[in-house]
Amino acid sequence: MLSALELVRRIEAGELTPRGAVELCAEAIAAKDESIGAFVALGLDRARREADEPRLAAMPLRGLPVGVKDIYDTADLPTQYGSPIYAGYRPPADAAAVVMARRAGGLIIGKTATTEFAYMVPARTRNPHHLEHTPGGSSSGSAAAVAAAMVPVAFGSQTAGSVIRPAAFCGVAGFKPSYRLIPTVGMKCLAWHLDTVGLFAAGVADVAFAAAAIADRDLRVDRSAPAAPRIAVARTHVWPEASAAMHGAIETAARAAQAAGATVTEIELPGILEEAYRAQFIIMDYEAFRSLAFEYDRYRDKIGGPLRDHLDKSAAVSAGEYDAARRTASRARQTLGDVMSAHDALLTPSAPGAAPRGLGSTGNPAFNRLWTLMGVPCVNVPGLMDGDLPLGVQIVGSFGRDHAALEAALFVERAIAAKA
Amino acid sequence: MLSALELVRRIEAGELTPRGAVELCAEAIAAKDESIGAFVALGLDRARREADEPRLAAMPLRGLPVGVKDIYDTADLPTQYGSPIYAGYRPPADAAAVVMARRAGGLIIGKTATTEFAYMVPARTRNPHHLEHTPGGSSSGSAAAVAAAMVPVAFGSQTAGSVIRPAAFCGVAGFKPSYRLIPTVGMKCLAWHLDTVGLFAAGVADVAFAAAAIADRDLRVDRSAPAAPRIAVARTHVWPEASAAMHGAIETAARAAQAAGATVTEIELPGILEEAYRAQFIIMDYEAFRSLAFEYDRYRDKIGGPLRDHLDKSAAVSAGEYDAARRTASRARQTLGDVMSAHDALLTPSAPGAAPRGLGSTGNPAFNRLWTLMGVPCVNVPGLMDGDLPLGVQIVGSFGRDHAALEAALFVERAIAAKA
Repeated sequence: MLSALELVRRIEAGELTPRGAVELCAEAIAAKDESIGAFVALGLDRARREADEPRLAAMPLRGLPVGVKDIYDTADLPTQYGSPIYAGYRPPADAAAVVMARRAGGLIIGKTATTEFAYMVPARTRNPHHLEHTPGGSSSGSAAAVAAAMVPVAFGSQTAGSVIRPAAFCGVAGFKPSYRLIPTVGMKCLAWHLDTVGLFAAGVADVAFAAAAIADRDLRVDRSAPAAPRIAVARTHVWPEASAAMHGAIETAARAAQAAGATVTEIELPGILEEAYRAQFIIMDYEAFRSLAFEYDRYRDKIGGPLRDHLDKSAAVSAGEYDAARRTASRARQTLGDVMSAHDALLTPSAPGAAPRGLGSTGNPAFNRLWTLMGVPCVNVPGLMDGDLPLGVQIVGSFGRDHAALEAALFVERAIAAKA
Repeated sequence: MLSALELVRRIEAGELTPRGAVELCAEAIAAKDESIGAFVALGLDRARREADEPRLAAMPLRGLPVGVKDIYDTADLPTQYGSPIYAGYRPPADAAAVVMARRAGGLIIGKTATTEFAYMVPARTRNPHHLEHTPGGSSSGSAAAVAAAMVPVAFGSQTAGSVIRPAAFCGVAGFKPSYRLIPTVGMKCLAWHLDTVGLFAAGVADVAFAAAAIADRDLRVDRSAPAAPRIAVARTHVWPEASAAMHGAIETAARAAQAAGATVTEIELPGILEEAYRAQFIIMDYEAFRSLAFEYDRYRDKIGGPLRDHLDKSAAVSAGEYDAARRTASRARQTLGDVMSAHDALLTPSAPGAAPRGLGSTGNPAFNRLWTLMGVPCVNVPGLMDGDLPLGVQIVGSFGRDHAALEAALFVERAIAAKA
């Protein structure tokens, strides 16, 4: 993989130019993307031209290539949201997150494949670790592109589990920041209480570096050794949905963290959080139906069958159920805040297991829905395997304490690597 | 003015057809809009065709004409956001609120004038009560169109004071619901923590009826007499910015409400709310800079001078100041929630006074910023005058208790009318 921090170090040392970094990506894309299908549009020539601008040297990303999930508007590249309804669409403006990446010195080299409207119908992307397995979704192309060394940094988005799950399946670091740390303006909305801008990179320190630059926050974790965190293992009520390999991965990660000096305890979450898990479905369905109401009313036949059927059902969610679900979420956020006051991070699966075989589904977000609704920072920590497929464990932090979550994730990542 | 409830009653009684309602609007627009300038695009022929669809009879708005502020995307009408950058732009989809209005049986008859990007540079709209005075903004066209009987219902949006202030200046009912009662998906974003979909109509019961239909919530207040509310007069720390006439209007409204049976007390708000008022500027500036970053970076010369200068300054707001402002807002919302547990509504000015003379500014949102940031429902109650110009008083409710706020507003509206 292309480590963002390593590329930036080489650029700063004069061993690599931004143009050279673009060529690294271009070569990997030429060699691999026909089989992986991570990109749906490329802007390499524009990136090459921009790479020669001297002002990049003063910008934090230093001209680093960035992939953008095709759910974000881009004025210079086609934007199709994974749907035939938007074939050939070119928005009038870039999404705010894309402008923030450019302003931080990132070069947008292409748009990455998304499931239809970041929901359920898969893109054609394959898992770089095993082409017959799903890369996860909805940010399929971004996770696969980073895993296959086609780009060092890529944007995803998460409404249920669309950043953490594909990061886990593809064996890369994925970061879903606190809700609204990075604005969703100009991103095709799926569910406004849930949609969160996320990022992929090779390792935890890389993704923290990219997030720090783009969000203009103190999020870097590469400048000193991470403090030993207080970690609580949270199995949650969906634990039975996880594979034996994932059960083992959580034990391995917990033991490794403890051996490295972390305080590791077990926690059973209060019942309101299970209620909130169920509320996430209601909120997502109610909002998705309204976010996609225009497409549903005017282009019903161009919506993928599974999504169309799901929207048919979502129409039945009442405003009363939705309002009650929002109140449940609000109470659960307060409870979780109280719970987290005694811990730096929770350790929990990123997904039920390794990437399932087949490309018909992008997998199950059961281990992600609650945290997205709670708005708390989540990090997929890569490094463990189930045979030839990656297994990701998840660090969940406190709302607004994104740096602490990233630091705990780095601690666990290093502890796992030290033990392997 | 065209009362939405009265038009619907006439349609239900067979005295008026939806087509006839469209013609009432078309005639008023033809007679008055050359001098008022409320509309920037009209879709009367499409509305006439849609008016003949029998299915409207089963939909709550019954084919009522609706005006849409030109900050909402519409696939069938040009969408310019008040900016020359978007001249000739036709979005690929309708905003969610527009689809919700259509699904409730509303007919979109045109787009109404907005200040540039719903911010500070005025549209050409004039106040129907006095053409040399501002109609207020940023929802200038929607407020003026309702005041001039050109449409019974119109969408606005509020980020600082863009619904309640123009409603007050134009002498119509304006309703800014609880934050996110109606989705902002497909509305050009100005500041994502603040942007709120609002509505204008002739009177409080009319705007409640429209909101109930569009949001699919129990918000109607026309079916029984409103209960006598517990009202607290909240002068707030910006009281000295209000005119003598406005000071008198608040006394008049308070006495009228008390005479009609309301419990009226005085309240001094906790200091955290004054801090939150100042935080609103920081949050709005930080977010507006990012929402408009693409236009600022690529089309700087096409941004109006005052907005360009303001964005130049907004660039200096740091992420740290912004994050601190958000934490202040969060604490203030909790405090306000505690305060409101003892009251049904606050009574406070809608604006510093009547509409100022001149079209160079849309007036001062000092009496609106705090409530927008708090996310609480606000209603402009019309009925009082300062000479030949309307004076609006504002009812502020508790978050999520929009029905109670509308009921209190109706109570005050009737009390004022009974006293006049």
